[in-house]
Amino acid sequence: MPYINIKVTDEGVTNEQKQALIKGATELVVDVLNKSPQTTFVVIDEVNTDNWGIGFDQVTELRRQASTTPAGKS
Amino acid sequence: MPYINIKVTDEGVTNEQKQALIKGATELVVDVLNKSPQTTFVVIDEVNTDNWGIGFDQVTELRRQASTTPAGKS
Amino acid sequence: MPYINIKVTDEGVTNEQKQALIKGATELVVDVLNKSPQTTFVVIDEVNTDNWGIGFDQVTELRRQASTTPAGKS
Amino acid sequence: MPYINIKVTDEGVTNEQKQALIKGATELVVDVLNKSPQTTFVVIDEVNTDNWGIGFDQVTELRRQASTTPAGKS
Amino acid sequence: MPYINIKVTDEGVTNEQKQALIKGATELVVDVLNKSPQTTFVVIDEVNTDNWGIGFDQVTELRRQASTTPAGKS
Amino acid sequence: MPYINIKVTDEGVTNEQKQALIKGATELVVDVLNKSPQTTFVVIDEVNTDNWGIGFDQVTELRRQASTTPAGKS
Repeated sequence: MPYINIKVTDEGVTNEQKQALIKGATELVVDVLNKSPQTTFVVIDEVNTDNWGIGFDQVTELRRQASTTPAGKS
Repeated sequence: MPYINIKVTDEGVTNEQKQALIKGATELVVDVLNKSPQTTFVVIDEVNTDNWGIGFDQVTELRRQASTTPAGKS
Repeated sequence: MPYINIKVTDEGVTNEQKQALIKGATELVVDVLNKSPQTTFVVIDEVNTDNWGIGFDQVTELRRQASTTPAGKS
Repeated sequence: MPYINIKVTDEGVTNEQKQALIKGATELVVDVLNKSPQTTFVVIDEVNTDNWGIGFDQVTELRRQASTTPAGKS
Repeated sequence: MPYINIKVTDEGVTNEQKQALIKGATELVVDVLNKSPQTTFVVIDEVNTDNWGIGFDQVTELRRQASTTPAGKS
Repeated sequence: MPYINIKVTDEGVTNEQKQALIKGATELVVDVLNKSPQTTFVVIDEVNTDNWGIGFDQVTELRRQASTTPAGKS
C-alpha cells in the first residue's frame, strides 16, 4: 500500500511527463517490493520556483543566474 | 497538538464539505485522544486529478473510463 | 482516493486508539465526500515529544511544566 | 541534506518574505547542525485559509471574527 | 531539484530494496524531467502496520486475515 | 498558524540542537510573517541514513565514502 509523493518545481511539467512519473513510480514499488498497483498512490506536487529554495536562494533566482551563464541541469 | 493533513482530488470540494472535514477531524482527535481543539491543525490539500495516480493511471483517466462504464465511487 | 496523515505526539497511543483514528478518519471522508473506503489511506505518525515544538518549546518541556502546575489538555 | 517544509496560510506572503524564510531556514540548519546549504531544500506551501482549520473552524472564519473584535495575531 | 517521499509499511524492507528504490526513483526524475541526480532527494518512510489503515482497518489486521485466506499482494 | 517540518538524517542530533531548531524556526516565522508562536508547530523528523538518498546513493554509503576521502559537510 505505498504512497509516493513527488515534489518538483512547476516549470512546465507536461501531462505526458506526469503519466510517466505515475507509471514509473508505481512500477518501481511493484518491481522492488512486490506491492499491488491497485493500492499504490502517486501524488505529484508542482511547487512555484519562488517557493523552493536551495543554497539560500529561490530557484527563480538560480534559474535567472543560470540563463546568463553556462549552466547544468537541476 | 495534532496535525492532520487530508489530501483529496480537486473535484469540486465545497466550502461546507471543508468545514465538515475540519470539524470532524478535530472532533476525532479530541474524542479518541483527548487532545485540545485549540492546538489541533487540519490542513486540506486539493490535488489536481492529473497529478494523482493509482494503479498506474492518472485519476483523470480513471474518471473518464468510469464515465463510460457503470462505476463505483472513489 | 483520499490520503489522511495524522501526526500526534508519541505519548502512549494504544492500539485501540489507532483503530479508532483509522476508522473515524475513513468514515469522515466517506460521509462528507462520498469516497470509497477501499481507496482511503490513513497513516498515523507518532512523534517524540522532544521533536515537536510549540510556542518556542519542546512538548517534553511543556509537559514537565504542566505536571507541576494546574494544566489543561493539549 | 535537510529538507524543510514551511506551511503557512496564503495571506499575501511577499517575495521578500519568501526569500527571508528560505535564507533563515537554511541558516538555521547550517548554524545548528553544520549542514551544507548546497544540499538544503526549503519548500514553502501557501494554504488557502478555507483549507486550514484550528479549533474546529476554518482560518477564514477566524479571520472574519477577529476583524470584528480586538484580536491578537496568528 | 526533486524531492521524492516513498511511504511503505515496515514489513522487512531490506537494504538492497532501499538502494533499488533510491536508484529507481532518482532515475525516474532524471529520465522523465531531465533533473540533476545531485539535487534529487529520496526519503523512505517505513510505517508500522498498526499505524497504516485502508478500508477502515489496520494493515496488521488485513495481513492477519490474508494469512488465513487465499490472498493477493498489497 | 504555521507548520514547519524539518527532516534531517539521524546522525546524533542532540536535545540542545532540537531545542535550537524549534526556537529558531519559530522565531523565523514570528519575525518574517508576524505569526503567533503559540500557534506555530515545529516537527523534526530524524531519518535513518539508509532511508535517505541523494545522487542515486544512500547517505550511509556517501558517509562511508567521505570517511575515506577528504570531504566537505552535508
